[in-house]
Amino acid sequence: MITAEGCRGRRQRLWERLGETVEAVLIASPEHLAYLAGYAPSPFSFRSNESWAALWMAPDEAVLIADNVCRPFAEAAHVDRLELIGWYDGKHTASGRRAVMREAVARFVGSRRPRRLGVEWSAVPAGVLAGPDLEGELTDVGPTLLELRRQKDPDELATLELAISAAEAGFAAAMEAIRPGITELELYLRVNSACTAALDTPAQIYGDFAAGARAKGPDTHATPHALREGELWILDFSVVVRGYRCDFANTLVAGEPSADQRALMEACQAALERGEERLGPGVEARTIDEVVQAEIAARGWTTTKRSHTGHGLGLSHPEAPYLVAESRDVLRVGDVVTIEPSVFPPDWAGGIRIEHNYVITEGGCRRLTHHRIGLTR
Amino acid sequence: MITAEGCRGRRQRLWERLGETVEAVLIASPEHLAYLAGYAPSPFSFRSNESWAALWMAPDEAVLIADNVCRPFAEAAHVDRLELIGWYDGKHTASGRRAVMREAVARFVGSRRPRRLGVEWSAVPAGVLAGPDLEGELTDVGPTLLELRRQKDPDELATLELAISAAEAGFAAAMEAIRPGITELELYLRVNSACTAALDTPAQIYGDFAAGARAKGPDTHATPHALREGELWILDFSVVVRGYRCDFANTLVAGEPSADQRALMEACQAALERGEERLGPGVEARTIDEVVQAEIAARGWTTTKRSHTGHGLGLSHPEAPYLVAESRDVLRVGDVVTIEPSVFPPDWAGGIRIEHNYVITEGGCRRLTHHRIGLTR
Repeated sequence: MITAEGCRGRRQRLWERLGETVEAVLIASPEHLAYLAGYAPSPFSFRSNESWAALWMAPDEAVLIADNVCRPFAEAAHVDRLELIGWYDGKHTASGRRAVMREAVARFVGSRRPRRLGVEWSAVPAGVLAGPDLEGELTDVGPTLLELRRQKDPDELATLELAISAAEAGFAAAMEAIRPGITELELYLRVNSACTAALDTPAQIYGDFAAGARAKGPDTHATPHALREGELWILDFSVVVRGYRCDFANTLVAGEPSADQRALMEACQAALERGEERLGPGVEARTIDEVVQAEIAARGWTTTKRSHTGHGLGLSHPEAPYLVAESRDVLRVGDVVTIEPSVFPPDWAGGIRIEHNYVITEGGCRRLTHHRIGLTR
Repeated sequence: MITAEGCRGRRQRLWERLGETVEAVLIASPEHLAYLAGYAPSPFSFRSNESWAALWMAPDEAVLIADNVCRPFAEAAHVDRLELIGWYDGKHTASGRRAVMREAVARFVGSRRPRRLGVEWSAVPAGVLAGPDLEGELTDVGPTLLELRRQKDPDELATLELAISAAEAGFAAAMEAIRPGITELELYLRVNSACTAALDTPAQIYGDFAAGARAKGPDTHATPHALREGELWILDFSVVVRGYRCDFANTLVAGEPSADQRALMEACQAALERGEERLGPGVEARTIDEVVQAEIAARGWTTTKRSHTGHGLGLSHPEAPYLVAESRDVLRVGDVVTIEPSVFPPDWAGGIRIEHNYVITEGGCRRLTHHRIGLTR
């Protein structure tokens, strides 16, 4: 799980990257509060409703600013100091939550009067930076954070692997449960229950749970549709732990797979292997797309919906590096990526997608996901 | 559910309230995009990851600005026009999602050159308003929105009642399932499944699922704890539909309730009735707190944890009006509120909380929730 040491290291790297350009930094996006401070309010508590928090970083201290109702989450964060703002005490009428925080953060920043402040230009609320006390130069640190967060630390990989182990339980439960007549919603609930049991806490999950033609999207949430004999069901979902998400897939069939379905699954597995073989530092991301798509084509398959071959993931998804035809990205050690061959043949109602997650290593890659890929048990 | 007519009416009321003070308005908080445009991206889709959207309102048009990956959610919104921004096409490396939207919204606002712009000062990202083209006067519309949204429209009430009917199914499932030996997590999963089945779509739920002393908080999420014979379990949770949430409660006992537990449940029910009798427009919110707490005290009960007696709810919770001892709020027609008597007697491991939701009407109130309150089936 996310550690104090990991957060310190990430803050240190941000300073090194920013060099002398800023005196202090102000962060407000949920993803970078998780990245730099391990702050990740639970979506399963009323406490996180309409809340937001800020991380103030100066070279000598990291201060998390949050309101009193977020105290349990703030106390679990890894910072040098908490600044807890009184918002609601259960005895008095409270003012608007966002505004109370905005005023408090603006006061805090104003009191420090930095001449050169780094901010998340796309996340810090406008009102925070509008005070008369703030007259220095502002630098957007958003692009630097996106760049840095591609390389995962050991505590980030451990958090991702926890999410992955929960998701693996979900894939196993779905494989066990699928049969003609079961609904997408029943399968969704089996997956959710298995992930929750694996984590020993309610699982935050999202993704594709759609059968047949609906698997092409754009709406791939679970519905009351009951699977028909021979129908394909794509399970492509994420579990989120402390802001970090995995993203991998399998395709199951309700009942006995046909020879064509088996052949397409074999093609997708071969394509995945071709991609996996090429993963490594210095590799152009579009190469992975090329070899995966070439294997599918070599086996004579065409698709009516061309999806991306893969992408980076971690604090969001999709994100860089993009494993697509026109990608400008080059793989680096520490990137976490997916490869996800996906084929919807003409005249088929549905299609097949399978997917693994990998971390790029000096020697090539390490596969992070261990679910069994296959159409049936 | 949220309707186009409802959204138009709410935008109209915002214009009326703002009068001549602004020429245009820019909204970016999730709660007010739901309120004014019915825009509510699903938390169960990868599409909403790191996304944000903006609503531009001029007297002659309402424009929702979102990126292409949010298209399905944007198309379900109620506005005059969509401005879809190309972020990721599955073929090329994409830039940071937040920044692409920030630049697009800034360009849009800059092209309109409003002299007097109303903004959500605590939600619109700083970078949106930093462009050289924006030299007019800025007004924070956040407080006006908080004020307006207290009074619920028919479509908002219908949405809340859909959330309530799903939650009622959850309460019934928990009452059916509770027994000594069942875990909090198993109960959570039963509740989640029942809500999901009632909605025919994955349910977004959060709240308290803790037994015994843990029910006092602050951490009230479900754990692997197995309920002991006679242990009290407080179920106090919310279902969220299109951004609107209910919030009501019951307390169950694993096994046979004791005489003391029955007596406390009766006291809480009487207290709830005292509060309910007084609900109506023009009533000071603190009066509700007084009569509820007086009934509990009159029956000889004291508590080791004094919670609020109630609060407003809808697009968030808690929010105004606050039903607390030092409240400054006065109830109005259209307010949706909870009353939630809660007692943790000294020397008890746990306590009891029960809760209903109401809308304030000309004649007093209408109760919105219909779950059976009681310690057992």
